[in-house]
Amino acid sequence: MSLLIVGSVALDSVETRAGSVADALGGSALYFSWAASLLNPVQVVGVVGDDYPMAALEQLAGRGVDVSGIEQNAGKSFRWAGRYSEDFNNRETLDTQLGVFADFKPSLPESFRKAKYVFLGNIHPQLQMDVLEQTKHPALVVCDTMNLWIDTEREALLELLGHIDVLMVNDSEAIQLSGESNVYKAANWLLDQGPRTAVVKQGSFGAFMVVDGRVFYVRALPREDVVDPTGAGDSFAGGFMAHVARCDNLSHETLRQAMVYGATMGAFAVERFSVERFGELDAADVKERVERFADLVRFEIGG
Amino acid sequence: MSLLIVGSVALDSVETRAGSVADALGGSALYFSWAASLLNPVQVVGVVGDDYPMAALEQLAGRGVDVSGIEQNAGKSFRWAGRYSEDFNNRETLDTQLGVFADFKPSLPESFRKAKYVFLGNIHPQLQMDVLEQTKHPALVVCDTMNLWIDTEREALLELLGHIDVLMVNDSEAIQLSGESNVYKAANWLLDQGPRTAVVKQGSFGAFMVVDGRVFYVRALPREDVVDPTGAGDSFAGGFMAHVARCDNLSHETLRQAMVYGATMGAFAVERFSVERFGELDAADVKERVERFADLVRFEIGG
Repeated sequence: MSLLIVGSVALDSVETRAGSVADALGGSALYFSWAASLLNPVQVVGVVGDDYPMAALEQLAGRGVDVSGIEQNAGKSFRWAGRYSEDFNNRETLDTQLGVFADFKPSLPESFRKAKYVFLGNIHPQLQMDVLEQTKHPALVVCDTMNLWIDTEREALLELLGHIDVLMVNDSEAIQLSGESNVYKAANWLLDQGPRTAVVKQGSFGAFMVVDGRVFYVRALPREDVVDPTGAGDSFAGGFMAHVARCDNLSHETLRQAMVYGATMGAFAVERFSVERFGELDAADVKERVERFADLVRFEIGG
Repeated sequence: MSLLIVGSVALDSVETRAGSVADALGGSALYFSWAASLLNPVQVVGVVGDDYPMAALEQLAGRGVDVSGIEQNAGKSFRWAGRYSEDFNNRETLDTQLGVFADFKPSLPESFRKAKYVFLGNIHPQLQMDVLEQTKHPALVVCDTMNLWIDTEREALLELLGHIDVLMVNDSEAIQLSGESNVYKAANWLLDQGPRTAVVKQGSFGAFMVVDGRVFYVRALPREDVVDPTGAGDSFAGGFMAHVARCDNLSHETLRQAMVYGATMGAFAVERFSVERFGELDAADVKERVERFADLVRFEIGG
């Protein structure tokens, strides 16, 4: 079933303990699309500059991603540079150049407006709202955000929360937005603002979902080494949304499975720099990885 | 099947956001015994002073705990006083008075020496070894430790690891003991020292077990409020050991269930000060709580 993502398309320069890359493919829309395309077709909306390696979009198109919603404008592509701490728990932004992203006004191609499943990447809350107004009665709208908007656009963000179905954020973002110190209180506060479902990502501890008062956990895979954590959350979102879209229902069971597919894609993302890992994968790899997640928590109730 | 615990019996004075208690029942052996007794008979070895409220031991005896291994010696009982931070993530020790615990030399009653399942609480590693030498071919020996011994008795501790089956520690202890910065590397390092199984507790994130190269996770219950985290880890150990003892086998499935029973008892412990919560519980409460753990992670693998 149709799945739309609106987000950033960037060129990332990243340094980690494992090495570094310069001007590598990145951005929330790109990670999301690569991950989601393993499960379901994707329609992507974003903007790139005239310096962008357009072959990267052709490659995505070859994976079932409709890239006709990515505008190429005169100017530089969005660039981000950062460095991760030795233990990957912190990252320092070395440089941000918005380029053409500064004037990004998402415009949905006519064929995208009926998308049944919509993901709003962490662009400005007003732009997220603008995208929403261009859609036609989607079945599920899922929204990400970031610390910058919580700091600077709190009112617009709270307004948006009244119009979406699922908010998907990091634990630190949930705590910052709610003002609560406990992450479950924070999740419940978020739900009081409108969404029926909250998904809270907790880095190497995995993620949890609260829906209709029920909590579901997915743990991250045990992992001794990471290459590059960039894009793990966007890849999680891609796996989550694509599984819901291909099942085309919103049952608790589908949402729980979607959490596991999300975690699966996040786990793949961190194994290489940029989106490199996704190019190596097929359905069998995904199935094997999902099985590993199942085995991590499987038990029969005894005695 | 027979289950032996050797550990501390203390009087705790605790301050948390939820209130405070003075000279309340505490100590690893007491928390362990209360939790374990909900599932299986327990034999407990420890020491108290002549100021100890002996009615507390009679109460335990009424729950199926053989307290004949608790010596009462002249002098003061072990006392600990501490205060938890607002978010419960840190605690400050305000006072420690070892009293009769300073000269504790565990001596197992003859009837305890054939215990099939043995838990060595976090007493001095040499005392843990002394206890082990008094036992007769137990089927499973599980051992806890603490930062103090990792700092001051590292060699004795490493020697002990060659003689036990399961090491059960906090993540910070695993990291400190191994010198690794990654918790899975730390767990594998611990396994290289001798134990077949490592159980690593991660506070509000739950715990994981590594056995024969397989990892199993149990998440802690989502929780907005805690009364007193003291004894959660010892209660976890009690639930874990008592489930193994009543199943009387060491299969992966039993160990996985044991992790869930451990988490269940840890979850109960923090709901009241001291061991108060356990006195309110019966088998039906435990069953209902275990079901909640199962529901937290249950999913069917989809398409």
